[in-house]
Amino acid sequence: MPTLVLIRHGQSAWNLENRFTGWWDVNLTDQGAEEAKAAGRLMADRGLDFDMCFTSFQTRAIKTLNLALEEMGRLWLPVEKDWRLNERHYGGLTGLDKAEMMAKAGEEQVRIWRRSFDVPPPPLEAGSAWDLAADRRYAGIPIPNTESLKDTIARVLPYWNARIAPELKAGKRVLISAHGNSLRALVKHLSNIADAEITGLEIPTGQPIVYELADDLSAVDRYYLSERG
Amino acid sequence: MPTLVLIRHGQSAWNLENRFTGWWDVNLTDQGAEEAKAAGRLMADRGLDFDMCFTSFQTRAIKTLNLALEEMGRLWLPVEKDWRLNERHYGGLTGLDKAEMMAKAGEEQVRIWRRSFDVPPPPLEAGSAWDLAADRRYAGIPIPNTESLKDTIARVLPYWNARIAPELKAGKRVLISAHGNSLRALVKHLSNIADAEITGLEIPTGQPIVYELADDLSAVDRYYLSERG
Repeated sequence: MPTLVLIRHGQSAWNLENRFTGWWDVNLTDQGAEEAKAAGRLMADRGLDFDMCFTSFQTRAIKTLNLALEEMGRLWLPVEKDWRLNERHYGGLTGLDKAEMMAKAGEEQVRIWRRSFDVPPPPLEAGSAWDLAADRRYAGIPIPNTESLKDTIARVLPYWNARIAPELKAGKRVLISAHGNSLRALVKHLSNIADAEITGLEIPTGQPIVYELADDLSAVDRYYLSERG
Repeated sequence: MPTLVLIRHGQSAWNLENRFTGWWDVNLTDQGAEEAKAAGRLMADRGLDFDMCFTSFQTRAIKTLNLALEEMGRLWLPVEKDWRLNERHYGGLTGLDKAEMMAKAGEEQVRIWRRSFDVPPPPLEAGSAWDLAADRRYAGIPIPNTESLKDTIARVLPYWNARIAPELKAGKRVLISAHGNSLRALVKHLSNIADAEITGLEIPTGQPIVYELADDLSAVDRYYLSERG
């Protein structure tokens, strides 16, 4: 039975400051690093093991993966990194403190931007402090200037289909370290969650989510590893 | 001009204890981790950058790479891990304290095992505490039970030719994090060093070695980054 584990990166500096992060490359806090190590120990203790790992181009997800793998004695596993597993791009909200945004645009508007399925925030302005056009890692990549969750899904799923699903179908056990919204995209797909519901699904940091999958990769079971003996 | 940088992993626990390590998967010491970070900062300060990284299947080399890349803001670079970049397999010497070995086999014999080009140490006995036959990472791989430096070269160079040289010829800037003897193999090849001389070449831990290469990958220059302004 194909096994898939999803893990959202540990707490980042901007999770802690409650700022919209998106594609900005914020590091883990010390607590976030500890969450990642604890996740690795938990997976090892429960006898989970992997053949192949996937992560985004963002430091907080890569470090979460590396710290967890080290605890598992599995740093040697192959890891593929791809921008299509990046966090949702929050456009013009990037870098803003959520409380300030609420004071400025109104709580209701911020809620819509954060939680609606297909309404993107206003675009990031070119030349903004958070503009990634000059970041070499994204050379040749169609960097979005904002994304709805629907937009995020539209670049996560082709990557899933092209790169991850074939590994699972070939019998590989897969670990994915990624972000709140790139993981929402996968959970929506695998667990067949409606558009209106997926935006309310909270994915906690550093908690391994186990999928037991049928051979056609439909979900047989999904659970937080910490909640199963 | 193709650029290649070689780095030997930072100090490991068994470097410190002066024990033969080889394929045993010993971790970095705190000092070793600091060496790796310092190497990353040095490379970033000197404006070195990379497109592709290679490392072994061994934690000390992988962690050295990860720590250096993090300092450079380059954790997102692609990394290929392969057993053929592993340290020389020290056979029956694995795990032994060098001073004890000298008392047992004689200083001259130990010197021959460590430093001769084509004399391997006695083989590791099957079922030894250091036997890696049950280590999943080496499943399907022809694990040696001992190696001379010549034997190490005989598995490093085919990997160089198959995987690393083509990336350099395609214009990629390459960073390799590996081990004293897998790096000796590469330096011998690139700098055309005689059999009798290569065994005496000491490669210090955590010191980036820069190769400037001609288009045919012959060496134009080789130097320690720390020794050039």
